[in-house]
Amino acid sequence: MIQVGIVGGTGYTGAELLRLLSDHEQVRIRVITSRTEAGKPLSGLYPNLRRHIDIAFSEPDIKVLSECDTVFFATPNGTAMTMARELLDAGTKIIDLAADFRMKDIEDWRKWYDMDHACPDLAASAVYGLPEINREEIKTAQLVANPGCYPTAVQLGFMPLVENGLVDTGSLIADCKSGVSGAGRAVNADMLFCEVVDSLKAYAVQGHRHLPEITQGLTEATDDIIGLTFVPHLTPMIRGIHATLYARAKGDITDLQSVYENRYADEPFVDVLSSGSHPDTRSVRSSNMCRIAVHQPPGGNMIIVLSVIDNLVKGAAGQAIQNFNLMSGLPEATGIAQAALLP
Amino acid sequence: MIQVGIVGGTGYTGAELLRLLSDHEQVRIRVITSRTEAGKPLSGLYPNLRRHIDIAFSEPDIKVLSECDTVFFATPNGTAMTMARELLDAGTKIIDLAADFRMKDIEDWRKWYDMDHACPDLAASAVYGLPEINREEIKTAQLVANPGCYPTAVQLGFMPLVENGLVDTGSLIADCKSGVSGAGRAVNADMLFCEVVDSLKAYAVQGHRHLPEITQGLTEATDDIIGLTFVPHLTPMIRGIHATLYARAKGDITDLQSVYENRYADEPFVDVLSSGSHPDTRSVRSSNMCRIAVHQPPGGNMIIVLSVIDNLVKGAAGQAIQNFNLMSGLPEATGIAQAALLP
Amino acid sequence: MIQVGIVGGTGYTGAELLRLLSDHEQVRIRVITSRTEAGKPLSGLYPNLRRHIDIAFSEPDIKVLSECDTVFFATPNGTAMTMARELLDAGTKIIDLAADFRMKDIEDWRKWYDMDHACPDLAASAVYGLPEINREEIKTAQLVANPGCYPTAVQLGFMPLVENGLVDTGSLIADCKSGVSGAGRAVNADMLFCEVVDSLKAYAVQGHRHLPEITQGLTEATDDIIGLTFVPHLTPMIRGIHATLYARAKGDITDLQSVYENRYADEPFVDVLSSGSHPDTRSVRSSNMCRIAVHQPPGGNMIIVLSVIDNLVKGAAGQAIQNFNLMSGLPEATGIAQAALLP
Amino acid sequence: MIQVGIVGGTGYTGAELLRLLSDHEQVRIRVITSRTEAGKPLSGLYPNLRRHIDIAFSEPDIKVLSECDTVFFATPNGTAMTMARELLDAGTKIIDLAADFRMKDIEDWRKWYDMDHACPDLAASAVYGLPEINREEIKTAQLVANPGCYPTAVQLGFMPLVENGLVDTGSLIADCKSGVSGAGRAVNADMLFCEVVDSLKAYAVQGHRHLPEITQGLTEATDDIIGLTFVPHLTPMIRGIHATLYARAKGDITDLQSVYENRYADEPFVDVLSSGSHPDTRSVRSSNMCRIAVHQPPGGNMIIVLSVIDNLVKGAAGQAIQNFNLMSGLPEATGIAQAALLP
Repeated sequence: MIQVGIVGGTGYTGAELLRLLSDHEQVRIRVITSRTEAGKPLSGLYPNLRRHIDIAFSEPDIKVLSECDTVFFATPNGTAMTMARELLDAGTKIIDLAADFRMKDIEDWRKWYDMDHACPDLAASAVYGLPEINREEIKTAQLVANPGCYPTAVQLGFMPLVENGLVDTGSLIADCKSGVSGAGRAVNADMLFCEVVDSLKAYAVQGHRHLPEITQGLTEATDDIIGLTFVPHLTPMIRGIHATLYARAKGDITDLQSVYENRYADEPFVDVLSSGSHPDTRSVRSSNMCRIAVHQPPGGNMIIVLSVIDNLVKGAAGQAIQNFNLMSGLPEATGIAQAALLP
Repeated sequence: MIQVGIVGGTGYTGAELLRLLSDHEQVRIRVITSRTEAGKPLSGLYPNLRRHIDIAFSEPDIKVLSECDTVFFATPNGTAMTMARELLDAGTKIIDLAADFRMKDIEDWRKWYDMDHACPDLAASAVYGLPEINREEIKTAQLVANPGCYPTAVQLGFMPLVENGLVDTGSLIADCKSGVSGAGRAVNADMLFCEVVDSLKAYAVQGHRHLPEITQGLTEATDDIIGLTFVPHLTPMIRGIHATLYARAKGDITDLQSVYENRYADEPFVDVLSSGSHPDTRSVRSSNMCRIAVHQPPGGNMIIVLSVIDNLVKGAAGQAIQNFNLMSGLPEATGIAQAALLP
Repeated sequence: MIQVGIVGGTGYTGAELLRLLSDHEQVRIRVITSRTEAGKPLSGLYPNLRRHIDIAFSEPDIKVLSECDTVFFATPNGTAMTMARELLDAGTKIIDLAADFRMKDIEDWRKWYDMDHACPDLAASAVYGLPEINREEIKTAQLVANPGCYPTAVQLGFMPLVENGLVDTGSLIADCKSGVSGAGRAVNADMLFCEVVDSLKAYAVQGHRHLPEITQGLTEATDDIIGLTFVPHLTPMIRGIHATLYARAKGDITDLQSVYENRYADEPFVDVLSSGSHPDTRSVRSSNMCRIAVHQPPGGNMIIVLSVIDNLVKGAAGQAIQNFNLMSGLPEATGIAQAALLP
Repeated sequence: MIQVGIVGGTGYTGAELLRLLSDHEQVRIRVITSRTEAGKPLSGLYPNLRRHIDIAFSEPDIKVLSECDTVFFATPNGTAMTMARELLDAGTKIIDLAADFRMKDIEDWRKWYDMDHACPDLAASAVYGLPEINREEIKTAQLVANPGCYPTAVQLGFMPLVENGLVDTGSLIADCKSGVSGAGRAVNADMLFCEVVDSLKAYAVQGHRHLPEITQGLTEATDDIIGLTFVPHLTPMIRGIHATLYARAKGDITDLQSVYENRYADEPFVDVLSSGSHPDTRSVRSSNMCRIAVHQPPGGNMIIVLSVIDNLVKGAAGQAIQNFNLMSGLPEATGIAQAALLP
């Protein structure tokens, strides 16, 4: 069994990680830390885990954590970077579900996250954990930066177009709709039931932290300049991201559908739907699958890609386990192969 | 009191019309017709109207309807056109909440609605009932085509840009999110609670009937060619449309905010929010207001307009009453001035 | 115009009061106080009121408030009692939407609300504002205690049985289901969207503050001892209370339906549905109506009463205005006669 | 591998059965029948199963079905009884998720289900599949009647009280709240999103088919007469049943909590929460667990039991698999041991 530690298990991402790991046949959860909940049983916060994980939160302790084979950080931004070096030095592998190691341009990171970076060298060497792009690097990585939820849905949706030079990369648009769990479990009046239910709004139209992360990823796939407009929306559902992507075809594209089917033919967690489909987010709820449909409406050169994921699974905890499996030499789908919950 | 008839009062649009008219001080509802519900009290279908409107559904009868001053059609597409001429000849005014008289290009109408038109001449003379564009024509109209829900939100959002020649009209994008009531009350397995709740999807990406209606409206406001990509989405809320609109600025626009504020300064039902705002659909729930915010994110020439309405009010029944008030010489806001319900 | 002040307008009850009063033809809202929001425009918190009420929150100021004809307290428990005497002395009428003046037994109040009472004499003289019970006293009252939401639904449901001595009052059960807005707008992790949506739970089974309030009301209607079991539940809807009431018939009751119809025949805001009906909470959403159905299933002596209200309207702000109208000599339904919003 | 057939896989119960069986390590799904969908791939109706179960619906065929080791019926009431004898004769085991074999009193069954029974003798010999009551009989059964959703939650909640003679069994009350999926996937205007969301109502107060099923079960556990009032409610959530149970204690009960803990100490799928708890339905969403809390509020002899299940899992498909495991000699929790999905 692989010994696993989780730092910061109180948020939804941590809870989802625990739910999935509790069913992972090769994992023993050794420690779950939380400064605020130390000493309390997990099931107080997460009654669904009662009788599934019999463990209490504990204070974060580098020594205990460094005895784990792998440590997941499900912490706020800025935490993993303060503990990473010590753990790596002890030979422990790290998967950070926050943003500390996602961006290579540290200056840019500092601007968007409004703090100094504790270890720019580690950010430089970290592997961006999107298996569909970086599978081989992930297999040998010590430190993996798990992608953000929007960046996962958007990059998987745009990638076949960008990699193949099929569209004008200077005028990409990602209109994204997210469920409320993407905002985490922090107590925020704006996320009260009565504030968000039966309503919908855009937010952060002037700039969202996932914009530079997506741009970085797409830029690595092409020699062209990436110009991306990204507008996230908050929608009254628990889980799910629906990315509606717009790109202008450079010329005639004879078989757009095949471009997508070929790109993802061997991917266990990307499902290209048949032509004309409209994936709904519930088709991936609680699952690690990303479902994609691609459209080219008549009378124009606009390509529209619909890409859906569960923000807590393929957009966070599920993808982290996918990375963990790769890093641990396990079959990639171990513990994350379940079908989505529907209805 | 103005005598009013309603044809087809069983859908959500009809119910909303009844709710609003029941509180309209200048209206007497004389007749509500429904072939399927004839003889049954209104409150069977709509328990909220119990003790508010004491009337039963009746069979449609041209004679009774022609004794009304104004008849609203809240019917499926293709019904109003079969009864319009007789009513108009009798001097009765008509407001059609369906699509029979919205499009001037009858050939195009035939294609999108897949039926022949019973009276192309009436379609030609009908006034498109968007008061913010056609207020004066509406005042003297006998036959008003009430706009679709998406077209209302999208046209109000794009109009200041298009009228003033500020953007490239050939590459407009309208990414729209609608509540479920927009689909009507027809029994459709896809609209069951368990099928749409906690989920989100795009639909009709290959083409939606509201596309030519929007294009027609925008074309009338400019000499330039309109090229519009329109993608509607179904979202798990009852009411509300959120239109997220994308347009490329032609050049530097020094005061975008003022363009919007000036355009709608005297409008009772268009509220331009302060710069940087993100309107949520609940801020207009049950009200006839359209709230708009306009953004120009740094580092590009993209203008993003956020436009929200209640699809059943400003997108249907409320706008119909706004038109009715104008046609009847009443103050424009009579009966539709209430604040939105929140929470 | 009647000059009105509102103390504590930041919660959902205050917002609903403002929404309804903004449409009340005899009211001028003179002042809205909030310590935390003083100086900020109302529409910041409540975007639905933008362009409807053009006023900012201000610091509570007894002098300004005492210039009002009537002051509504939409404050937490324990606030109104500290300001009431001064306002009453100045001739200002008070309607308290919190619990300060609801209970006559001050010792009991102290126990349930865990604080001392600042003015037990005022609590003794205050009129309990349930118009269906106390209409005449309300008309001449200076200080009205507006009932709680559960107590309104439960008392209206049980009253005809208790008043007429038809049931065993020692074994009453009220199983109540409430929408989330009943918990107010206070920031509480338990009321986050992701915590309450798509779920249901009972709470406060060991004892809820509304239990003694209901017991007091029922006790006044009978010489018998009241024994009540009250279990509230939190349900994933915004508004609405559904009280399911169980009582054992003492003997054969020949026409239960008539008992209810007769009791409420002249009530503008109690609607007794026809025999066999099942009211849904949406049939009263946003309206001041209470709808009641009464059942006696075959094969037993159990009477089941179904009583629904909108907790923010008949359960709070709407009933406060109903009381205000009575206290001000206005027609009882002024400003609160609208039909429910459906869908 | 055990060869399994499913008759009627188009409803939510069938879909849930498929989802769970697709992850069951000892099962090979051999055939899924549906008259209406024959020939179509499963993933057309259930996009979540795409890439998980690669099979199409087929016409029901006794010959194919009788080659299976076990056949699950996820059909409307009245179907399984027409095919059961032939399958049993062929040595195939049957688990019926509908009501054909749940009741022993055929006369009563006929009355409640309004049809004649095709094989009363099989109904007589069928084993009622509630493992917590009938585990040993289930192990050797050929024909198992899987309990209804309400009966599962209610019987598990009441059983310790009734078995131990602790309460007046003549005055039991079960006030139950169900998610919408309990109504199935049949196209019914009353189950449209806009009809049930943000609302709550009781239904079938005059009598529901699950009443005699519950009464039968409780009667078998005691010599006393069972008198039960059962009121189901429809609530705006997808999954979940919350049973709030009321029973009068016969005398002083010194340790109610222990009664429950002892009764269910060895049960893998009944979790007795600590004293004072309030289980929420989401704590069992998608899981086969039943969580129970028991209360005795001060000042009376009323015992209140809170019992929650997922109606599609422990209330249907999960319990069917639990029975299947027992009938097949497999560990009881095989394939149904997952933690609930939260949030």
